[in-house]
Amino acid sequence: MTGQEKYDARARKVNSLLCVGLDPDIAKIGDSFRRSEYTQFEFNKHIIDATAPYVAAFKPNAAFYEARGDSGWRELAMTIEYIRSNYPDIFTILDAKRGDIGNTNRGYATSIFDEMGFDAVTLNPYMGGDALQPFLERDDKVSIILCRTSNDGAGEFQDLDVGKEPLFMRVAKRVHSVWNARKNCMLVVGATRPKELKMVREAVEDMTILVPGIGSQGGEVKESVLAGQNRQGLGLIVTVSRSVIFAENPVEEAKAVLKEINAAR
Amino acid sequence: MTGQEKYDARARKVNSLLCVGLDPDIAKIGDSFRRSEYTQFEFNKHIIDATAPYVAAFKPNAAFYEARGDSGWRELAMTIEYIRSNYPDIFTILDAKRGDIGNTNRGYATSIFDEMGFDAVTLNPYMGGDALQPFLERDDKVSIILCRTSNDGAGEFQDLDVGKEPLFMRVAKRVHSVWNARKNCMLVVGATRPKELKMVREAVEDMTILVPGIGSQGGEVKESVLAGQNRQGLGLIVTVSRSVIFAENPVEEAKAVLKEINAAR
Repeated sequence: MTGQEKYDARARKVNSLLCVGLDPDIAKIGDSFRRSEYTQFEFNKHIIDATAPYVAAFKPNAAFYEARGDSGWRELAMTIEYIRSNYPDIFTILDAKRGDIGNTNRGYATSIFDEMGFDAVTLNPYMGGDALQPFLERDDKVSIILCRTSNDGAGEFQDLDVGKEPLFMRVAKRVHSVWNARKNCMLVVGATRPKELKMVREAVEDMTILVPGIGSQGGEVKESVLAGQNRQGLGLIVTVSRSVIFAENPVEEAKAVLKEINAAR
Repeated sequence: MTGQEKYDARARKVNSLLCVGLDPDIAKIGDSFRRSEYTQFEFNKHIIDATAPYVAAFKPNAAFYEARGDSGWRELAMTIEYIRSNYPDIFTILDAKRGDIGNTNRGYATSIFDEMGFDAVTLNPYMGGDALQPFLERDDKVSIILCRTSNDGAGEFQDLDVGKEPLFMRVAKRVHSVWNARKNCMLVVGATRPKELKMVREAVEDMTILVPGIGSQGGEVKESVLAGQNRQGLGLIVTVSRSVIFAENPVEEAKAVLKEINAAR
C-alpha cells in the first residue's frame, strides 16, 4: 500500500479528514506529565490515545522536539514508534519543512522514512525538484510540498507574479505535473487563505492538500473544506494543533472540529 | 561582539575566508574512527584539529547527524561543544536550511542558538520574513538566507522572472533592505554560478555571502572570489566539505584551497 492509499483508506474507515498536530511545546505541558522522564512522549501518548478514534493522521512538528536536543529527538522517535505499534493504520507526517541539495537530503530521507518510519514529510520547494529527488523517488512514501503557507507574511515571495500567476500557483502546477509523476506528492495550503486554496484545488485535480492554520491561527473549517475538498469529498488533511492538544478537553475539541468538517463535506 | 564581527575578526586574524563543512557521512568514515562509540564526533574532532589553523568557520550540516537519530543529534552537540571550548574564535554555522511559521521557529532558534550555541544558521526564505522573526530578532547571532543555491535544478523557481529580475535577486534585495535591519543577515549563493554571485554582490553592498559548491560540486575558487568578495576583500565564506574532509590529506587539501582563495583576493 502506498502512503496515499494508506491515508485515503484511513480517512474512509473513520470518516475523518482530521489530523492532530503533536506539537508538545514544553512550556505548555501540564504538571501531570512531568513526573515521567519523557514529558513530551507522555503528553503525546495521552493525546494520541484520546483522539485516535477521530483522526486520519498525526503530525508531529520537528521543531518542538529539536528544541530539546537529543532528548527531544528520542521522544519524537518514541512517539512515532507508539503510533506505529498501536494505531498502524493512522497516516503519520513529520512536519519538518526540510530541503537541502540531493546528496544531503538522503540523510533526511533515511532518518524520517526509514529509521523513524513516517509515512510522509513536509518539504520546502525553493531549491527545486532535483534537490528533493531522495524524497520524490520513494513510491511508498509521501512528499508534502509547501505551496501557500498560513503565516501572515507568506505572500512576500509566494504571491509574487511570475508571469500571469503567483509563485505559489507555479509551485502547485510544477508539483502536480512533474514532481508527482509517482503519485506520491501532496501540497500545503493554509486554511487562512480559502481563495488561494480554491485556486490550487482547481489546478491540481484530486491531489491531497494539507491544510494547517485551523484554530489558533484563525482559519475557518467550513470555508476550507468547501474550497479544498476533491471530487470524492476527500483530498484534504485538515490539521489542528494547539487548539486541540492544549484544550481543557482535547477529545471534545477534536470531535467538534471533525463535526464541522463533516458538516461541510 | 556580534556574529558578523566574530566572523570578520577571525577571517582577518588567520587571513582566511575558508569554511570547512563537517558532513560526516557515516558510510564514508574510515575504520580508524569506528573504535569509538562516537564515530561522527571522533571523525569531526580529527578534521577540526587538523584544519583549525586555516579556517574562519566550521559548518556542520544537520542532515548527516539527523540520519542517525538521537545518537547523531548527540554527536552534533558534542561537535559544537568541542569547537566552542577549543577554538572559541572560530565562527560556527549550523547548515539546517530551517524555516517554519514564527511560533514554531522559536523551537529551532532555541535549539540552535541557545542550547547548542551556534553563531549562525542557514534558513529558507520561501515562507517570508515574518516567519523568520525568531531568528532575525537575534542581534547576537547570524541568519544566513538561501538565495541562489548550488544544485543543478536550483533555477526551477529561483530563476523565475518576478518582474525585471529573477526571484533570487528579489530575495537578495529584500534580505539586504528589510530583513537585515539589525545587520545580522548573510546570503547563500552557490559557487557553481559566478555570474549570479556577481549580480548578488552588486545588489547587497558589503553583506557577507556564504558560497558552497567548491570542490565536489564543481565550483571554481578563483571565479567565486573575484565575483563575490566585497570592498574590504572580505564578505565571503568559501565552503568546502567532501573534497576536504574525505581527502587523503585534509590539511593539504584545505591549505591548497586557502592558497587559491588568497591568490584571487
